[in-house]
Amino acid sequence: MRIFICGFGTVGQGFAEVIASRRDFFDKRYGERAIIVGAMDSRTYAYDPEGCDPLGLVERKKATGRVGETEYTDSVEVLKGIEYDILVEVSPTNVETGGVGLLNIRHALESEKDVITVNKGPLALKFRELIELAKANSCKFRFEGSVGGAMPIINLCRENLRGESIMSIRGILNGTCNFILSKMDKGQPFEQALKEAQQMGYAETDPTNDIEGYDSACKAVILANSIFGRDVTFKDVKITGITSITEEAIAMAATRNMVIRLIAEISDTKLEVAPRLIPKGHPLGITGTMNTAQIVSDLAGPVTVSGRGAGRIETASAILSDLVAIMDERVVG
Amino acid sequence: MRIFICGFGTVGQGFAEVIASRRDFFDKRYGERAIIVGAMDSRTYAYDPEGCDPLGLVERKKATGRVGETEYTDSVEVLKGIEYDILVEVSPTNVETGGVGLLNIRHALESEKDVITVNKGPLALKFRELIELAKANSCKFRFEGSVGGAMPIINLCRENLRGESIMSIRGILNGTCNFILSKMDKGQPFEQALKEAQQMGYAETDPTNDIEGYDSACKAVILANSIFGRDVTFKDVKITGITSITEEAIAMAATRNMVIRLIAEISDTKLEVAPRLIPKGHPLGITGTMNTAQIVSDLAGPVTVSGRGAGRIETASAILSDLVAIMDERVVG
Repeated sequence: MRIFICGFGTVGQGFAEVIASRRDFFDKRYGERAIIVGAMDSRTYAYDPEGCDPLGLVERKKATGRVGETEYTDSVEVLKGIEYDILVEVSPTNVETGGVGLLNIRHALESEKDVITVNKGPLALKFRELIELAKANSCKFRFEGSVGGAMPIINLCRENLRGESIMSIRGILNGTCNFILSKMDKGQPFEQALKEAQQMGYAETDPTNDIEGYDSACKAVILANSIFGRDVTFKDVKITGITSITEEAIAMAATRNMVIRLIAEISDTKLEVAPRLIPKGHPLGITGTMNTAQIVSDLAGPVTVSGRGAGRIETASAILSDLVAIMDERVVG
Repeated sequence: MRIFICGFGTVGQGFAEVIASRRDFFDKRYGERAIIVGAMDSRTYAYDPEGCDPLGLVERKKATGRVGETEYTDSVEVLKGIEYDILVEVSPTNVETGGVGLLNIRHALESEKDVITVNKGPLALKFRELIELAKANSCKFRFEGSVGGAMPIINLCRENLRGESIMSIRGILNGTCNFILSKMDKGQPFEQALKEAQQMGYAETDPTNDIEGYDSACKAVILANSIFGRDVTFKDVKITGITSITEEAIAMAATRNMVIRLIAEISDTKLEVAPRLIPKGHPLGITGTMNTAQIVSDLAGPVTVSGRGAGRIETASAILSDLVAIMDERVVG
């Protein structure tokens, strides 16, 4: 299977490293390698139909800031000119337009290529269109890593819990907010906790996307569409972030043995991100940067999952999970 | 797909009810029903090649104590005389011999039938033999519900985390012990907590299997064999139960902000069930009857899952998950 990677930031590089580390696994399981035929960053691309050395791509990117030697202006034109079987689309998220990721995914599906992505923009804006495009072209379209990083949730609901009616999902889907709220539990004011999150590399210089709940909202949209079969976009989410949570509110919650957490709630009728009071000791009351979600289905009852919501290798592990599922069907099946 | 159910206690009955409730799902997904052609309890069986009414079987069992009108002495002889595609083996667990369940599963696999079981006896005693038998006969052999009831773990590790190296699993795999330890956290002595567990129906009249850690040990064996590829049986587990945990030990742990939990630990080199000190707020420090497990893999890092470890419908939901996976491969694939 020939893989082309669109986007060669931390996740793209992490995925290349993971592929390099799993050679034996692919050889043994499929008698066939997962070959990376190329990768593209925002200005350049590399392509070798015989396969590139994944670690070589990472080294060049680190040394020169460019993954390839060829410059380009139109990513879709690049895709048109190369041969590949699976597109791994991990370019930067743009929640307003879907960005170049939307164009790349759309083109790949139209060209009957399988697609794996963790890019929340296209998924939060054009889910229904992309799913139907995949179906019309008999392509696999998978996106486990787009919600919760290494926390298993989408494939768990769609595959392991298939046959059940999933009633609701409530989850902590943004590790940065949870880190800040966990610090506030210990008496830190919001501004100081945010600053610490920035120093630790959890929050970006402009933290709006995290602390206003936009990132959680994108993930809620993906869950609503992919698990509840809804047809919603980012603008349908009722969003309240964590910026107005006061030290007094946290202290008040503590007197009732509760904590405040930013919870995304998704069901057939609900689509909301807001701070909620959670009893201490409840699975959704966790501290730190982990993501967690409680899925309630009609037979299994509550099933809770948690895992690292971000991170280079952790997100790459979710892409690997999707890749293996595709290869199992294409190669073994 | 024609299903025959061996064992018609609470889980067998729960599964029959679940099948009755999913008619639309099967019709829609496969254009084919999951038909229950019969069921067997310890003395009688029912069989109709055209399919039995699942709820009718449950009613007859409840009303008369017997699932069928035909008495039998040898369950394998019954299986030899009927036509079916999938055996659902949920007869009582016998950890010393494997019981009738072992004979039924062995016969079904030899007859090239797919098998789904939650019966820990055969799995804890003869795992390697049964897996090889399934492979030799090109049968599916699945057992998600044998560990942790509705908590997803076996298929999660074997399918969703496929491609990763799983380093270790640590888990609370017995809800009864966790209920007792949770009560002891609040100052109840062991005997009183056990009595309450019995009154609530969590513990049996003879609680040995739970409180001595034998039940957890069986599940540890299943995880060791199925996820770590080991070849171990019940006698290979180092087991310490919860009967010697004193109120003093619990109180001492509390002063260090810890709780005591019965933890099963499984890895390539470890196979142990023993009480452990767990920090309060850690995923393995949960209270109540839920099962939980922390899986550590090389890429995803720690992934924690929890769910109801027992219960009629919850366990049946795990069987449904296995059934859907089999039908997806056989019917759709």
